[in-house]
Amino acid sequence: MPVNLPLPNPSELFPIAGVRIGVAEAGIRKANRKDLTVVLLDEGASVAGVFTQNRFCAAPVQVCREHLAAGRGIRAMVVNTGNANAGTGHEGLARARSTCAALARQLGLAPEQVLPFSTGVIMEPLPHDRIEAGLPAALGDAREDNWSRAAEGIMTTDTVPKAFGTQVVIGGVTVSVTGISKGAGMIRPNMATMLGYMATDARVSQAVMQQLAHELAEGSFNRVTVDGDTSTNDSFVVIASNKAAHAAIDALDSVDGQKLKAAMLEVARKLAQAIVRDGEGATKFITVRVQGGRTAEECRLVAYAIAHSPLVKTAFYASDPNLGRILAAVGYAGIADLDQSKIDLYLDDVHVAVQGGRNPSYREDDGQRVMRQSEITVRVALGRGMAEDVVWTCDFSHDYVSINADYRS
Amino acid sequence: MPVNLPLPNPSELFPIAGVRIGVAEAGIRKANRKDLTVVLLDEGASVAGVFTQNRFCAAPVQVCREHLAAGRGIRAMVVNTGNANAGTGHEGLARARSTCAALARQLGLAPEQVLPFSTGVIMEPLPHDRIEAGLPAALGDAREDNWSRAAEGIMTTDTVPKAFGTQVVIGGVTVSVTGISKGAGMIRPNMATMLGYMATDARVSQAVMQQLAHELAEGSFNRVTVDGDTSTNDSFVVIASNKAAHAAIDALDSVDGQKLKAAMLEVARKLAQAIVRDGEGATKFITVRVQGGRTAEECRLVAYAIAHSPLVKTAFYASDPNLGRILAAVGYAGIADLDQSKIDLYLDDVHVAVQGGRNPSYREDDGQRVMRQSEITVRVALGRGMAEDVVWTCDFSHDYVSINADYRS
Repeated sequence: MPVNLPLPNPSELFPIAGVRIGVAEAGIRKANRKDLTVVLLDEGASVAGVFTQNRFCAAPVQVCREHLAAGRGIRAMVVNTGNANAGTGHEGLARARSTCAALARQLGLAPEQVLPFSTGVIMEPLPHDRIEAGLPAALGDAREDNWSRAAEGIMTTDTVPKAFGTQVVIGGVTVSVTGISKGAGMIRPNMATMLGYMATDARVSQAVMQQLAHELAEGSFNRVTVDGDTSTNDSFVVIASNKAAHAAIDALDSVDGQKLKAAMLEVARKLAQAIVRDGEGATKFITVRVQGGRTAEECRLVAYAIAHSPLVKTAFYASDPNLGRILAAVGYAGIADLDQSKIDLYLDDVHVAVQGGRNPSYREDDGQRVMRQSEITVRVALGRGMAEDVVWTCDFSHDYVSINADYRS
Repeated sequence: MPVNLPLPNPSELFPIAGVRIGVAEAGIRKANRKDLTVVLLDEGASVAGVFTQNRFCAAPVQVCREHLAAGRGIRAMVVNTGNANAGTGHEGLARARSTCAALARQLGLAPEQVLPFSTGVIMEPLPHDRIEAGLPAALGDAREDNWSRAAEGIMTTDTVPKAFGTQVVIGGVTVSVTGISKGAGMIRPNMATMLGYMATDARVSQAVMQQLAHELAEGSFNRVTVDGDTSTNDSFVVIASNKAAHAAIDALDSVDGQKLKAAMLEVARKLAQAIVRDGEGATKFITVRVQGGRTAEECRLVAYAIAHSPLVKTAFYASDPNLGRILAAVGYAGIADLDQSKIDLYLDDVHVAVQGGRNPSYREDDGQRVMRQSEITVRVALGRGMAEDVVWTCDFSHDYVSINADYRS
């Protein structure tokens, strides 16, 4: 049961002109499951991606980087679930390339115009023959109003599909933004998350597109964590189909650039938070906000220490205001000259700790009241400077253990 | 149920001349529980300690550092469970000092000759009045052959007491080494673990003692992790009562110094591993050995990434050879220029991955066989150099969640 995460709202999933999506059942790991998705782009789209910083990055991630660098214009993407094609060596690379070539042949493209994505079990050979056999069905399904099915097509241990959209007026023209994402374990994105895709019909130059992809990831997917495990396959791709009639955006800090970025960030953040809300075993959605740091980096160190602590996460699961565990995590986060006597801790509106000690007016009943909620904000004030940052995470439950002890078996 | 951890063997817990221990029930948090321990040292003992690097270190840790630095000769230690006296601000410091002063008064010592230790819940006021009221009973119980009761007296969520001893001949004289430790959660020591004490009757100069404490911690407590949470109260204290008749050890790299260190390291390592074997919810004991690194530091980075990954730990719990999760952890450990095509992975004697991909001759049955064992060695060869290091950890089970969701309630 995800935390306060409604099913996708069809009226919000705006078709994006020039972006068609098809989904099929290819039997990659299990039968009767939508496990293959293709995305077809009209000529002229601007496409940028950010990918995992895991050094054990998957074969499709390596191929995506090559094909984006080739600069021949991306025209198609192919996504499979059930197998991550990671830890598969040279053979894995060959299979990812074979999949691209097969799709390129059917569309009359060069293989470098296709981006491959895989998600699922690591260190097992990709059944590329089944993927290639499933391509005609996926292509036959392709249409612009298919985002909801695509959100289903990329799910693994997710319990619900994740899709959001919004619209914004740029230069008098209404442009649309629609995106999908998936989780739900091995989630501590470092550049991007395990599969997030967003598209807009806005006109954006290719040069701006890469910057936009990075900034969106930094403000959304790169601020969520479920279990601290950075995946081998994290991929976040942003597409501008350039079909809208406004003047092209060729600087991100222009008025139009900022408007588009704000609209896309709204969707990206919802998609990223949706992964946490549907995190494996999650029962609560936790916002960790750290303020008063010298730099945003040190605020993030502290926020991640809290968000990754199994003791903090199990206390949230139990609704137990055992809040000293949060102070302990602040202390070991890695700020060498941290002064504990300057630290304050808040749980929503409840002032728990003052100057490193329990607030004399703090009452456990107040902590208990907040801990019982399904959405909680932890706020730490470091008393060192003006910087701040935020991380979103979930609690740690029996179901997390069950899901990950049983995932493959 | 700890993993292959027998109860302390009384015949191995050698009394240490000049070190008397007393235990009492002070009702600090719960009734009918040995929760107060005093250690009394004859004049002339060499004492050194290493303490948590958590910046939110507890009040007793701060007082220990002050009192050791005062250099007046440590003559007593007082340990309470049930309350960590951490996150308690100025008032917590005052209460730790009050406890030392009370014990000093009863023994005719200066307060600076007493070291205080606390373990238990964080951010609650230390009931120092109950501790002080319990001191006479603890003092009345003091004797040299009391190590087994002391091991019980410092337990919190531990399921069994942890105590080991050994003997070694130095300069023709048999000297004894005995130690105790406790876990069992918030265990990722950074300098030492949450309460470890060792004593020897060997003659060791004070100058050598501090070096010895550091080197013992580095080879034992600083290489274990249960949940990655570095405690606010980690303390590891080493005592030489200097009662043995051999020539004093005044250099650790002397023959006698190395013999003593080897004997003490044997005990320290057993004590540290005992914490993992009795780690919260542990069902398996895992040795993570990383070889072929450029430096020991980078080997540790990789070993801790594996040892802290919730996905790896739940796979061990499930006996599921889902070993790609280990490769993923290697990849995100933080070695920026790691080349995945040089990495090999072994599970005990089974060669799982070769050059970053699945070993063609690896059979899942073989991985399954090792995963079912209660003791497993993961070995990663990085192919970058000659350095290596090792970390000991346990798996991650439903019981970990239960214990930490219920600990305070």
